[in-house]
Amino acid sequence: MIPVRGYAAPQPGAPLKPHAFERRSPVRHDVVIDILYCGICHSDIHSARGEWGEGTFPLVPGHEIVGRVSGRGPKTRRFKVGDVVGVGCYVESCGACPSCRSNLEQHCARGPVFTYGDKDRFGRTTQGGYSTRIVVDENYVLRIPRGLPPDKAAPLLCAGITTYSPLRRWNMGPGKTLGVVGLGGLGHMAVKFGAAMGARVLVISTSPRKAPEARRLGARGFLLSTDKKGLAKHASSLDLVIDTVSANHPMEPLFDLLKRDGTLVMVGASPTALAVPPFALILGRKQLAGSLIGGLKETQEMLDYCGRRKITPDIETIAPAEINRAYARVVKGDVRYRFVIDCGKF
Amino acid sequence: MIPVRGYAAPQPGAPLKPHAFERRSPVRHDVVIDILYCGICHSDIHSARGEWGEGTFPLVPGHEIVGRVSGRGPKTRRFKVGDVVGVGCYVESCGACPSCRSNLEQHCARGPVFTYGDKDRFGRTTQGGYSTRIVVDENYVLRIPRGLPPDKAAPLLCAGITTYSPLRRWNMGPGKTLGVVGLGGLGHMAVKFGAAMGARVLVISTSPRKAPEARRLGARGFLLSTDKKGLAKHASSLDLVIDTVSANHPMEPLFDLLKRDGTLVMVGASPTALAVPPFALILGRKQLAGSLIGGLKETQEMLDYCGRRKITPDIETIAPAEINRAYARVVKGDVRYRFVIDCGKF
Repeated sequence: MIPVRGYAAPQPGAPLKPHAFERRSPVRHDVVIDILYCGICHSDIHSARGEWGEGTFPLVPGHEIVGRVSGRGPKTRRFKVGDVVGVGCYVESCGACPSCRSNLEQHCARGPVFTYGDKDRFGRTTQGGYSTRIVVDENYVLRIPRGLPPDKAAPLLCAGITTYSPLRRWNMGPGKTLGVVGLGGLGHMAVKFGAAMGARVLVISTSPRKAPEARRLGARGFLLSTDKKGLAKHASSLDLVIDTVSANHPMEPLFDLLKRDGTLVMVGASPTALAVPPFALILGRKQLAGSLIGGLKETQEMLDYCGRRKITPDIETIAPAEINRAYARVVKGDVRYRFVIDCGKF
Repeated sequence: MIPVRGYAAPQPGAPLKPHAFERRSPVRHDVVIDILYCGICHSDIHSARGEWGEGTFPLVPGHEIVGRVSGRGPKTRRFKVGDVVGVGCYVESCGACPSCRSNLEQHCARGPVFTYGDKDRFGRTTQGGYSTRIVVDENYVLRIPRGLPPDKAAPLLCAGITTYSPLRRWNMGPGKTLGVVGLGGLGHMAVKFGAAMGARVLVISTSPRKAPEARRLGARGFLLSTDKKGLAKHASSLDLVIDTVSANHPMEPLFDLLKRDGTLVMVGASPTALAVPPFALILGRKQLAGSLIGGLKETQEMLDYCGRRKITPDIETIAPAEINRAYARVVKGDVRYRFVIDCGKF
């Protein structure tokens, strides 16, 4: 076994604290990764606080992991020691179901094995990237292209792919208009991707102070959620709205922004049900869709795209001791735009 | 002006009673239609009861109209006296917006002029098909193919196109699986269309006595909405669910029936907002969509398809004096499957 240091929530809602545990020694296709950086995703907070169901504690969160390969199982062939690699939200899947065979491992019929708080194929509880090392089957490991700094690459493994995938699926590009709801970790990536793909991006936010930020990130317009006149002015103007807000919020004003046949895609997940008035979708035959991270192939494509186009998140790097304070700031929306833990300091 | 007899709701929620009024004399492209039959749609009831907003009273409902051309404006060229024709949910649109130019007049940017309770281009309140005659621009009039009995053709103008359009849009056909929620006027047409197109149809209903009916209409399976085991057995099995229920109801069990990338399309419209748990769409990246009747071109295509394939609704023909009793029975779900008013008896 491999000794690991990290930070864990000892029980739901309790502050995270130092935690020593073990990973399996690498077998077959496993690589051992010395973790350099791990992003803090809002999902980590929901999970650590038990807001998304029970969970197994102590829980080491973290699924935006970048590190360097330091060991290999006997059957590895994709990576060698020293490679800079990434691990995202899942570390295994069945490999045989229609979703896995369609490169959509996140929708594996048996359920993918999530990077933390799940059971792996050996029956052990998975633990995430707020730690010094992780052992993962190389088939679930991504290559970080040269030119992407490892700290900034980390959030791409969740915030990046979660926004990139729906923008590709709904063909964002020149001539298309994209609304981005919420300018946080996911939202700021959606703005950067949308602008890079050539779409005209409009940010919709509850916070007026985000307006100059939205423009700096590449948006062409900014709309305050409470500005009824502004909303009316932009009615029926958007092809796609990507909604990154993970708290409950009014949906009807967002549907009104969509053109006929437009889609609102949720990537943030409110723990409570959203209220959807049927007529808001029937008139204009609009759609409400969900999207969940992305498959391995598309995640690699996204990383390579970011490497080529020099697209990286705006981050604030912190030491492990600052995790609990960072959580409080994420919940308040006080981060521009992703905290990344320096895992060399555990 | 043309004198007309009909039935109207004098005020929201009041019983319908005989009502004499006038239509404009035909101008330009207008045809005068002597109405033979008019279907009773659940929308008529919502409108007559003021459940969908204020409305203008007295209100003559009815937008499933079949009749015979009896007069023509000077510029008409599509129809001649004696032709059997149909009028659906709208009688005008701007003709110039992107939706109108895409044969989607129902989504006209200025709003189509609905067949009743709306303002036409002369500023007059439109009145529907529970009456002896109607005057409509021939460009908004459909041809009823020979071989379709006029009484059975009437419900196709709303219930028919409302279900046909989404089934075409989502490519129902051999190898596809379709769920139909609610076996009423719309639902029974969705079953007939789905089966005719070659899809495998499963009916989901709150009423166990609908099971043999569902099979008679062409469904291959039947599922009781409350049968948790049955629902679990059919989890992730459907490509498309068409939801015809116009009251609020639980959505999550229906989302669970969809395959990955599946769509639930609402054609019934609950007056209150539906509760949609985000994860039900995010996991399996499913979609909730709305669909609204259909454009004129597609409505004609649907009528011609029904003529060729001998697809007609199951109807119960009534005299005008029975309208109020029929409303009560529709609300109770006690109709197989559409009431059609014999308009020769006004």
